[in-house]
Amino acid sequence: MTQKRYLFTPGPTPVPPEVLAATAEPMLHHRGPDFRVVYERTLGRLKEVFRTENDVLLFAASGTGTMESALVNLCSPGDRVCVVTAGAFGDRWASIAGALGCEVDRLAYDWGESPSPDDLASRLAEREARVVLTTHSETSTGVVSDVRGLAAAAAEGGAVSVVDAVSSLGAVPLETDEWGVDVVVSGSQKALMSPPGLALVSVSQRARDARGTLPRFYFDWERTRKAQQVFDAAFTPAVSLVKGLDVALGLLLDGGGLDAAFERHVRLGRACREGIKAMGLELFSPDDDSAAVVTAVRTPEGVDAAALLLLLRDRHGVTLAPGQGPLKGKIFRIGHIGYFDVFDIATALAAVELALTELGAEIERGVATTSAFEAYEQPLKV
Amino acid sequence: MTQKRYLFTPGPTPVPPEVLAATAEPMLHHRGPDFRVVYERTLGRLKEVFRTENDVLLFAASGTGTMESALVNLCSPGDRVCVVTAGAFGDRWASIAGALGCEVDRLAYDWGESPSPDDLASRLAEREARVVLTTHSETSTGVVSDVRGLAAAAAEGGAVSVVDAVSSLGAVPLETDEWGVDVVVSGSQKALMSPPGLALVSVSQRARDARGTLPRFYFDWERTRKAQQVFDAAFTPAVSLVKGLDVALGLLLDGGGLDAAFERHVRLGRACREGIKAMGLELFSPDDDSAAVVTAVRTPEGVDAAALLLLLRDRHGVTLAPGQGPLKGKIFRIGHIGYFDVFDIATALAAVELALTELGAEIERGVATTSAFEAYEQPLKV
Repeated sequence: MTQKRYLFTPGPTPVPPEVLAATAEPMLHHRGPDFRVVYERTLGRLKEVFRTENDVLLFAASGTGTMESALVNLCSPGDRVCVVTAGAFGDRWASIAGALGCEVDRLAYDWGESPSPDDLASRLAEREARVVLTTHSETSTGVVSDVRGLAAAAAEGGAVSVVDAVSSLGAVPLETDEWGVDVVVSGSQKALMSPPGLALVSVSQRARDARGTLPRFYFDWERTRKAQQVFDAAFTPAVSLVKGLDVALGLLLDGGGLDAAFERHVRLGRACREGIKAMGLELFSPDDDSAAVVTAVRTPEGVDAAALLLLLRDRHGVTLAPGQGPLKGKIFRIGHIGYFDVFDIATALAAVELALTELGAEIERGVATTSAFEAYEQPLKV
Repeated sequence: MTQKRYLFTPGPTPVPPEVLAATAEPMLHHRGPDFRVVYERTLGRLKEVFRTENDVLLFAASGTGTMESALVNLCSPGDRVCVVTAGAFGDRWASIAGALGCEVDRLAYDWGESPSPDDLASRLAEREARVVLTTHSETSTGVVSDVRGLAAAAAEGGAVSVVDAVSSLGAVPLETDEWGVDVVVSGSQKALMSPPGLALVSVSQRARDARGTLPRFYFDWERTRKAQQVFDAAFTPAVSLVKGLDVALGLLLDGGGLDAAFERHVRLGRACREGIKAMGLELFSPDDDSAAVVTAVRTPEGVDAAALLLLLRDRHGVTLAPGQGPLKGKIFRIGHIGYFDVFDIATALAAVELALTELGAEIERGVATTSAFEAYEQPLKV
């Protein structure tokens, strides 16, 4: 029999069969009424998911494409941008900004630390910045940062706030308008339960007014915004991916709504952490309800992290994610984003338990899944 | 019963069911071996389709994204680029180059004219340019230009030659290496028979050496080239679209190969033209075998072009394309790119005949499809 596959990485994430089926429907012309109704509905649903009254712009691109869009639309050559970094995706902000000729002022934390709004306020008081670039869910460490506080500090310091919400949007609360976040960038392939290839960005009026002079065409916000006002796209959209995203957003919004999704992610995070701890492993990501997106686990002493992941993948068909950058070899990561339930957590934990045993690690057997189910059932504190 | 849909636009084009099915398979991690083998095979097949030994770089983007990639990688601010324009897509080159701060020198033809390599040589002798931007198949008019001659004139004039082959690649011959074309940009959604969302570009050593200083990150060729050397992507690739493209390229290359596809497109163009003429309509696109991609037809006197297309679409489920720019209302266009056979041509012709009759146009009835079938069967001249 063909080996079954289990995808437990923090992106791409598993895609529901209804969504996959929608992407496989016969091709439509992107300017015909059949597609336009899908496009209009998708753009409307995205506003609900982004919790914004502003336009959410849709591009055919990876998430990095919309990160770039934020910089090329907001900045002029040499503009100072403050980049809050505490992992791989904070570093990506810095790389993009540097490549585009911005002056990069890093507010740098060790990987795994949680950025502090007070530090940001102090930094901006010391040195102004045109834009503050932050990461909501730092997928490389499992830390979900206080973007509400960071956005407030940015606004206080006179900067436009930009949040990378690629792995957080739809998994943990992000009140774009209420928290005054100017720009939120995200992608289709995480909690939005769709294949990768669509990049999304919400843009506040303040951000639109802050337009810079960096050269741009494909990622120009105004060009796409104008097209979307009549439910058109500036360039041929990724028709099949949009059809999939439409169905996925329907599942997310109609199946209990966003708040139910946020609660489910908190429970999934709890279940994963309790299972990991029950088998005697140590967490790298925070041991609290903020860590609802990715659980990062320290590789036990004497175990080769790469060997563990290869064994899981090649013998058991289970894909987890390795540590990145300075965490390579030191941690492994279990994503629980989007189309996940507690049985997926149980499978991930059982697979880790099995593979660690095969590698001779001394762990507590037979308790992880029970702990996970119990943690999942606990009521959330109000 | 749900109305059947017929997509006869020059992009997006119909996608074979095997390709759609591949896009709907369960999601894979892009760095796992299951996907890597698909990625490696796809990149290899793309070289065959581009007829090049150079790398073909793959981006999650619309075709316009790779057009922009050519400019941001090759040019520095203020560089003069010569844009050969004879339709909407030539104009797009000029818009992108202008937006990115290049000095645009237009070698402009009327829409429907075929650009001349001699004119280009004279222009470059008069005013040098860093880059020459051309359009292989000008989808707005149906003209397929002599890119071999244009690339030679560009090389002679010391410029890097860039060809927009979005609607031509895989439909009409384009010998990238043999003709010395430095950069060829294309997309997944035309003759490559895949959904839109993947953008492709082949880059010669000469083009790599000509690197400019315009700011870039997402579309930086070197970043993607380095990743692709180990069959990785610089950013999360559009996994499901790549799986579809892999299957589509297999159909194209294994089902008789590229030469068979070129011959089929010539025959489809002939069939479409003969049918159109048989019912008494006048061609706008050239009446010769070069017009193998799109057939542009003059709207008959007294017929409202917009009403014709709406009637076809809304009453008959048949989508054709309107005229663009100065040709709006004057022509309509039938695409025959990719997953097309002679029965599709017959259906398109029959639908045009029916709708024109309904609108009271005086046309010859009952002869178009027979003429099309006869033309399709004629042997090609060697």
